[in-house]
Amino acid sequence: MRMLLISNSTNYKEPYMQWCAPLIGGFLKQAKTAGDGIIFIPYAGVKIGGKDLPASYDVYEERVKTALAPLGLEIKSIHHFGDPVKAVNEAKAIMVGGGNTFHLVSEIHKNKLIEPVRRKIMEGAPYIGWSAGSNVACPRLCTTNDMPIVMPESFKCFDLIPFQINPHFTDPYPQEINDALRHGGESRQDRIDEFLTVNPQITVAGLREASALWVEDCAVTLKGSRDMRVMRHGKPAVEIKPESKFDFAFQKK
Amino acid sequence: MRMLLISNSTNYKEPYMQWCAPLIGGFLKQAKTAGDGIIFIPYAGVKIGGKDLPASYDVYEERVKTALAPLGLEIKSIHHFGDPVKAVNEAKAIMVGGGNTFHLVSEIHKNKLIEPVRRKIMEGAPYIGWSAGSNVACPRLCTTNDMPIVMPESFKCFDLIPFQINPHFTDPYPQEINDALRHGGESRQDRIDEFLTVNPQITVAGLREASALWVEDCAVTLKGSRDMRVMRHGKPAVEIKPESKFDFAFQKK
Repeated sequence: MRMLLISNSTNYKEPYMQWCAPLIGGFLKQAKTAGDGIIFIPYAGVKIGGKDLPASYDVYEERVKTALAPLGLEIKSIHHFGDPVKAVNEAKAIMVGGGNTFHLVSEIHKNKLIEPVRRKIMEGAPYIGWSAGSNVACPRLCTTNDMPIVMPESFKCFDLIPFQINPHFTDPYPQEINDALRHGGESRQDRIDEFLTVNPQITVAGLREASALWVEDCAVTLKGSRDMRVMRHGKPAVEIKPESKFDFAFQKK
Repeated sequence: MRMLLISNSTNYKEPYMQWCAPLIGGFLKQAKTAGDGIIFIPYAGVKIGGKDLPASYDVYEERVKTALAPLGLEIKSIHHFGDPVKAVNEAKAIMVGGGNTFHLVSEIHKNKLIEPVRRKIMEGAPYIGWSAGSNVACPRLCTTNDMPIVMPESFKCFDLIPFQINPHFTDPYPQEINDALRHGGESRQDRIDEFLTVNPQITVAGLREASALWVEDCAVTLKGSRDMRVMRHGKPAVEIKPESKFDFAFQKK
């Protein structure tokens, strides 16, 4: 299994996908994937460039194509295919973009893609996801930060890793920012603690912006410039350093 | 129908329920509800005072009781009743607290309370909700800001008003705050625009902190100190001033 699970496509005030494009290039090179045959799943992009669906998917595909063209990658969005299952079955790699996780999961189920994508990746095709696209590599969508704009048939996702990722993980705001905003409300850690209360058996990886998980078989390496926060029910959180290598239970490899 | 739909229980750095307790008192006084017979639905409170369920419900009930005791109100949490439907049927008023909307909706469905609460309120019993508790007065949970820690049987809610409330509505952060956080990501308006793209038939009321909707039959009055933002698909947003009175289509009364 080869997966690149990216927290966020774009860092603050940087051009689109600038920080992660080299990572994607390196990942596909190591996977010896030719540049063609990459299927892009745009279902999370419900309002890209201010466009409603389905035009939003076209804008999304174009934006990703443009960002990745310098790497010699050719991607084709699945919304152009009459038979999305066949498109997945014939793909050389799968790429899932960010946006609204609920819409993404809803459309994945409607198009009956859970099993085909899962099988494809388990059989060795590389998987690249960012934000919502990383979230759906997990067992369920339960640790998304997105608004539930639509009810999916199920919260079940591709279930390629045994833990949940919380993309765009944020630390509590400093006091001066809270004072400026005068807005109460819980921290991300509080929200994840709520998740862990109801789902005590599963671990949550808080993936901060500008970081990614590089998965090769059962070995995971944290890429990027920031620590990752590993949260479990009833245990203190643990921070993992960039370039650490660990297994699916977060034990050092 | 008499409803008080509050954005948030507690303003930044104020004691618990300080800002909204007088509003609740005035609302129940006008509804001529005696202080007893108020049933509290605590299902959104999955981790109150750091406690796991079900202890969390006890802590939640105690916290609300203490905050509202000076008003002479006696509330009893529904989790003490063997038959929650009977408890609703015999209640004089229903109060629904904030927390995690997904857990709230999940438990409301599990306990088969949608129809009993709906009927009770349609028949005239006062309804008081804050945050998640205001969200569930709407047709669906789709405009919550919460993490989907559990999948409810359905996103359907009490459907007592024909529009969606987004509680804790926030405006985009000022540039200096974005710069300090260096965190990208969409504004609340962006998220609601995504909702409206997929659900263009329904209106969203962005209820800022320290504000509430006071509903008497089909007349709604905005209470509190801040404007409310009314958002519709393909139309410019409209701001409504405190003490304005309007109908369910946001037309002035």
